[in-house]
Amino acid sequence: MPKPGQAGGRPRDSRVDHAIAEAVRALLAEHGYAALTVDAVAARAGIGKAAIYRRFATKQEMIFAVILHGMSEKPPADTGTLRGDITALAAWFGDRIAHADAGVMAGLVADIHADPALQTRFTDTYLTLERSILAALIDRAMARGELPTRPDPALVHGLLLGPLFTWQIMLGESAARTPQLAHTVAHMVTDALSMGVIPPATP
Amino acid sequence: MPKPGQAGGRPRDSRVDHAIAEAVRALLAEHGYAALTVDAVAARAGIGKAAIYRRFATKQEMIFAVILHGMSEKPPADTGTLRGDITALAAWFGDRIAHADAGVMAGLVADIHADPALQTRFTDTYLTLERSILAALIDRAMARGELPTRPDPALVHGLLLGPLFTWQIMLGESAARTPQLAHTVAHMVTDALSMGVIPPATP
Repeated sequence: MPKPGQAGGRPRDSRVDHAIAEAVRALLAEHGYAALTVDAVAARAGIGKAAIYRRFATKQEMIFAVILHGMSEKPPADTGTLRGDITALAAWFGDRIAHADAGVMAGLVADIHADPALQTRFTDTYLTLERSILAALIDRAMARGELPTRPDPALVHGLLLGPLFTWQIMLGESAARTPQLAHTVAHMVTDALSMGVIPPATP
Repeated sequence: MPKPGQAGGRPRDSRVDHAIAEAVRALLAEHGYAALTVDAVAARAGIGKAAIYRRFATKQEMIFAVILHGMSEKPPADTGTLRGDITALAAWFGDRIAHADAGVMAGLVADIHADPALQTRFTDTYLTLERSILAALIDRAMARGELPTRPDPALVHGLLLGPLFTWQIMLGESAARTPQLAHTVAHMVTDALSMGVIPPATP
């Protein structure tokens, strides 16, 4: 079993994780997305570049981990009900997005689209993790008998994350209201799931 | 009253609009977002650069108009019911996004965040138009007595557009399924509006 403070099954030096995260946040706030380099992060954190590259293959992956996932944060656990699980997951998405800078998110997403290798790595890490969280949430709700049909996890993902992601990055709305939006999204999606409105996965 | 084919009240030569749109689409498909220039569009369209700059202040605004709004496209008209209006608007959003390249959208959004003047222009044109469409839709539903309370148009905007925008640009899902997602989004948002789930605007 992983000890507290470790992410997944991989042993980590959490002081190094913390120093990297602090350096990335400070440098992004001071100079923005385009100016950030792994060299600058290593210097600011007082560590070697090798320690960064053991954790992250690229600058973009490092920024993504820091701004959207935290370094050792876990997704919400089973709350016992579909409504509780959806509310916790929407709040988790919303909290990460509310703490991210919209310009940094936009720069990162553009880089991911411009680089096929980065796109693959993004899919294999970030998207695969989020999809497994959604699938597990749906499995639990099916086992509890809370869903009339099994909805497509990809659609549920888009319906939950979409408004929160778009709110700041596309619509220029305030992060201060992201928690309110997350609450509304959770309410809507739970109702839609309970009523079987979200179609099943296509074969 | 504007003649058919004219956008808003401004007289236009629709052949030039069409030539610009065709050139932008072809060049984006061939060389991608970063490589597109106004010079290349003018050459490809067989027109002068001045004709482009009379319509669009920047390259980014031109791309946005072509890929997300069409050149002379109008938003959906009053369908007579809230459900009809929401379904038509979600389909309109979805159709534009399904026909756009995710990498082009991502590059444009990053440029908008990196340039305060472009951000202002984007807000004053694209966002203001979309917000006015949402406000009119809500006004019509209030007048018909279909809404228990007046929801915040910004929240409705995020809930409708968010999943569609995020589907391709962030989640890497197929544009072929965007119409299905638009249908599901419309169903969910209409139900939420009818039940007063979406909070009012904050004062």
